[in-house]
Amino acid sequence: MPGKFITFEGPEGSGKSTQIQLLVEKLEQQGIRATCSREPGGTATGEQIRNLLQHDAAGEPLADRAELLLFTASRAQLMDRVILPILDTGDWVVCDRFIDSTMAYQGYARGMDIATLDAINAFAIYDKKPDLTILLDLDIEVGFQRLEKRYAGSGESHDRFELEARDFHRRVRDGYQRLAEREDERFCVIDANLPISEVASEVWNAVKGALL
Amino acid sequence: MPGKFITFEGPEGSGKSTQIQLLVEKLEQQGIRATCSREPGGTATGEQIRNLLQHDAAGEPLADRAELLLFTASRAQLMDRVILPILDTGDWVVCDRFIDSTMAYQGYARGMDIATLDAINAFAIYDKKPDLTILLDLDIEVGFQRLEKRYAGSGESHDRFELEARDFHRRVRDGYQRLAEREDERFCVIDANLPISEVASEVWNAVKGALL
Ligand SMILES: Nc1ncnc2c1ncn2[C@@H]1O[C@H](COP(=O)(O)OP(=O)(O)OP(=O)(O)O)[C@@H](O)[C@H]1O
Ligand SMILES: Nc1ncnc2c1ncn2[C@@H]1O[C@H](COP(=O)(O)OP(=O)(O)OP(=O)(O)O)[C@@H](O)[C@H]1O
Ligand SMILES: [Mg+2]
Ligand SMILES: [Mg+2]
Repeated sequence: MPGKFITFEGPEGSGKSTQIQLLVEKLEQQGIRATCSREPGGTATGEQIRNLLQHDAAGEPLADRAELLLFTASRAQLMDRVILPILDTGDWVVCDRFIDSTMAYQGYARGMDIATLDAINAFAIYDKKPDLTILLDLDIEVGFQRLEKRYAGSGESHDRFELEARDFHRRVRDGYQRLAEREDERFCVIDANLPISEVASEVWNAVKGALL
Repeated sequence: MPGKFITFEGPEGSGKSTQIQLLVEKLEQQGIRATCSREPGGTATGEQIRNLLQHDAAGEPLADRAELLLFTASRAQLMDRVILPILDTGDWVVCDRFIDSTMAYQGYARGMDIATLDAINAFAIYDKKPDLTILLDLDIEVGFQRLEKRYAGSGESHDRFELEARDFHRRVRDGYQRLAEREDERFCVIDANLPISEVASEVWNAVKGALL
């Protein structure tokens, strides 16, 4: 039997990375092997694409649409070379952001055409959608306050998206909610305002209910 | 007034490069400035993508769909940074292969989904289709005989597509014909079996008729 494919989505600071770590530990305790994955990157090609995306290749500004196609090229390579083969072995894959980030950020927040992004996403993932998508829903301000705390004293700095205006992030959050309504079979929306351990038990309930 | 955008398409050895050179000379004689362009490449990002495509990045095989998305990422960057700005100045652009090569090679010959490729192409070119597409139609065998002659004694060697089976190239040719039927306003199909000068005068008639 193929493994299950779970993705985590949500605005900045909603707790995706935190919850993924807890979920993977929990799965391992149940004897389920699970691999975490991240985009862009994860393959030799993906790493080179990541370089192109991060350094504004050769100093020229990257066109919005070229950027999106590079993101999805990296996703297609990751899918074909890593995610689908792992699922084939029966292991599970848990991915920190995936197709819905493209829809929320480039689609709903930046205004690119939703139907076109759907088509490009479906193509890039070989029509293999996640079996379950956990949406960690959170008030934008709360998320940013968490990030400020996480950054305080660490070497990390805000990335491009984090520097966008609050209004942009409100569109991201609203976009996620529309995505969850559109595909309510695949999505499970969890209130990420709760303490970490409570969010974790909601996540575990969702995984058990949907996939075990 | 924006410049005109012309693309040349056709199977291997049909005379695209030969005819583009002749057309650009003819346009310049009429006082029309015309730029030739080529894919992938043509921008700093495009050149890096070209590298990724040609060297099978970091030694790993490139997934078919990742390859297609990289091609179209390069196309989007070329469109945004080069072709659209040139057309805006009033100069013309003549491009050696463009969206229809994707449709003929990846779509009709390799069997990727036509509607999806249409959507990805439209996105990559900012919905700006060529004003005129010259399809140089030729029997596959004749094209390959021409290439053998061109290669004889030159340092050049066959590229990946040229090494595909004859059957593949027949599907490319048939695919081009279907594309031309589908958009008969944009396409002009020219018999590329004729001598170079006769093809050139048919090309010129088409350009005059459609664009001048
Ligand atoms: N439920 C919670 N309550 C309070 N703080 C939390 C909660 N979940 C996570 N945090 C803290 O908030 C910060 C952001 O969490 P985390 O990095 O997991 O979020 P993220 O969604 O992965 O963020 P990013 O979008 O930046 O990747 C961390 O410092 C984390 O410890
Ligand atoms: N009408 C013609 N009749 C005979 N030979 C031709 C004709 N047109 C071009 N040739 C010759 O055929 C060869 C291929 O032409 P050309 O390189 O222009 O084709 P192409 O379509 O650009 O090929 P490719 O698909 O490899 O880019 C050249 O040696 C050229 O001189
Ligand atoms: Mg994170
Ligand atoms: Mg040529």
